[in-house]
Amino acid sequence: MRLSTVSLAGRPTWGVVEGDLFLDTGAVLASRYPDLKAAVAAGFDGVAEACKTAASTPIAEVEWLPVLPNPDKILCIGLNYEMHRKETGRAEVEHPTIFARYANTQTGHLKPIIRPNVSTELDYEGELAVIIGKPGRHISREDAMSHVAGYACYNDGSIRDFQRHTHQFTPGKNFMDTGAFGPWMMTPDELGPLDDLRLQTRLNGVVVQDATFSQMIFDIARQIEYCSTFTRLEAGDVIVSGTPGGVGAKRTPPLWMKPGDIVEVEIDKLGILRNPIAQEG
Amino acid sequence: MRLSTVSLAGRPTWGVVEGDLFLDTGAVLASRYPDLKAAVAAGFDGVAEACKTAASTPIAEVEWLPVLPNPDKILCIGLNYEMHRKETGRAEVEHPTIFARYANTQTGHLKPIIRPNVSTELDYEGELAVIIGKPGRHISREDAMSHVAGYACYNDGSIRDFQRHTHQFTPGKNFMDTGAFGPWMMTPDELGPLDDLRLQTRLNGVVVQDATFSQMIFDIARQIEYCSTFTRLEAGDVIVSGTPGGVGAKRTPPLWMKPGDIVEVEIDKLGILRNPIAQEG
Repeated sequence: MRLSTVSLAGRPTWGVVEGDLFLDTGAVLASRYPDLKAAVAAGFDGVAEACKTAASTPIAEVEWLPVLPNPDKILCIGLNYEMHRKETGRAEVEHPTIFARYANTQTGHLKPIIRPNVSTELDYEGELAVIIGKPGRHISREDAMSHVAGYACYNDGSIRDFQRHTHQFTPGKNFMDTGAFGPWMMTPDELGPLDDLRLQTRLNGVVVQDATFSQMIFDIARQIEYCSTFTRLEAGDVIVSGTPGGVGAKRTPPLWMKPGDIVEVEIDKLGILRNPIAQEG
Repeated sequence: MRLSTVSLAGRPTWGVVEGDLFLDTGAVLASRYPDLKAAVAAGFDGVAEACKTAASTPIAEVEWLPVLPNPDKILCIGLNYEMHRKETGRAEVEHPTIFARYANTQTGHLKPIIRPNVSTELDYEGELAVIIGKPGRHISREDAMSHVAGYACYNDGSIRDFQRHTHQFTPGKNFMDTGAFGPWMMTPDELGPLDDLRLQTRLNGVVVQDATFSQMIFDIARQIEYCSTFTRLEAGDVIVSGTPGGVGAKRTPPLWMKPGDIVEVEIDKLGILRNPIAQEG
């Protein structure tokens, strides 16, 4: 099943994507689930049934919002592919590198990623987002995958000079309208095994990142295990699982995204997240 | 005015502290303001009037919750006093160091700060918390203080080995029940100028941190200005403004908090935040 959050003629709702149609299950189930996060928390109970009576809209006509606009926590994994670790010159570590994104940094499929007025160093980072379904703390590696509600494409857009202002990444990872999340999440039963799936990031059609998930240093199960040692994971929490090598900051000369560019993150079977770049207004 | 969030016989509410009484303005204004964050967003409109009819409870009988249990963002400032910067061996930087806390890490006055089972390296960090009232982005240093709704004591409890797992602080700063926030917030008109106010942290009655706010490297106005370059600050957002020198990790031998200890953060005029330490159950 594919699900997302959208705006239909200005009305925010959530629903199921079947083929080229968006089914407005959010309207059918409004009294039970005010948002997609609530439906995730309930394990999508009743959603398949609601599809039978939900109004449909061609997906070409919906306005995509972030798959989950309001996660309690967005946990980002840094330096999780060997090529990216090496290009940044960072030492090997025994634990995942974690930084946080605030929910107000997110944007949806086809919406502009915004280059702020204070910097030109806007970089892409194509990533697999993991959406937590079953809450938990102290989750073992063996149980971890049973806590996953689904997956989505994510572009962890980064302002590199602000990321380097100090040793903590927070400012460079938290500009408004830099975290693109979409178009939809796909449940694990539909996506199948992750290892051989390929992630590509393309800037204006040119491939700039290309990797399979088998190349992750810390796999999804290990990420969930580690995060749950310190925090209780909740339904709708998002783990953004790291970016492969090829970022613009480490090219010679650096490759920055600029207004008018189109950036795409494609993951096999899962879909394509596409965003234009626009200047802060 | 002093305000906080509490539980009264198991019912969460928010209200005003007058002398030794808690006034349940949350019950009077329930239809307007579901929580203290909503009252902050409204500039406390109607709160003084509601005090006249609110039921009162001796503060000795309330259960203190975090002043704001549900901020959208908690922005923590690292290395913001020269003595602390030097004791950690960090270079001088031109910008504030920012890391994030998730809201689920917080706890209230008199509630235990929890030492997790995975570490013994539980450290204190007494700090001044700044609660944003008026939202904004690109806030100038000159306008910054007009965006402040109030101040509170904060203990930014840290698990030092997890903080050092990688170069990003997130895990060590985000264990459950380590961020103590209370007992109340105080509005700026009542607290007055910050510079000469003294912050003390005491562990089992012994002073372990002692500084005045004039010793901050980046003052509150500069913190608000910088954070608002990348994010829109919202009502109820919390900036935790950094800790002075004297942390346990940098002592010889290190001074860790352990079950049975009592830690206090006192700020002149503002009050005393007191927490026992307990082992994870």
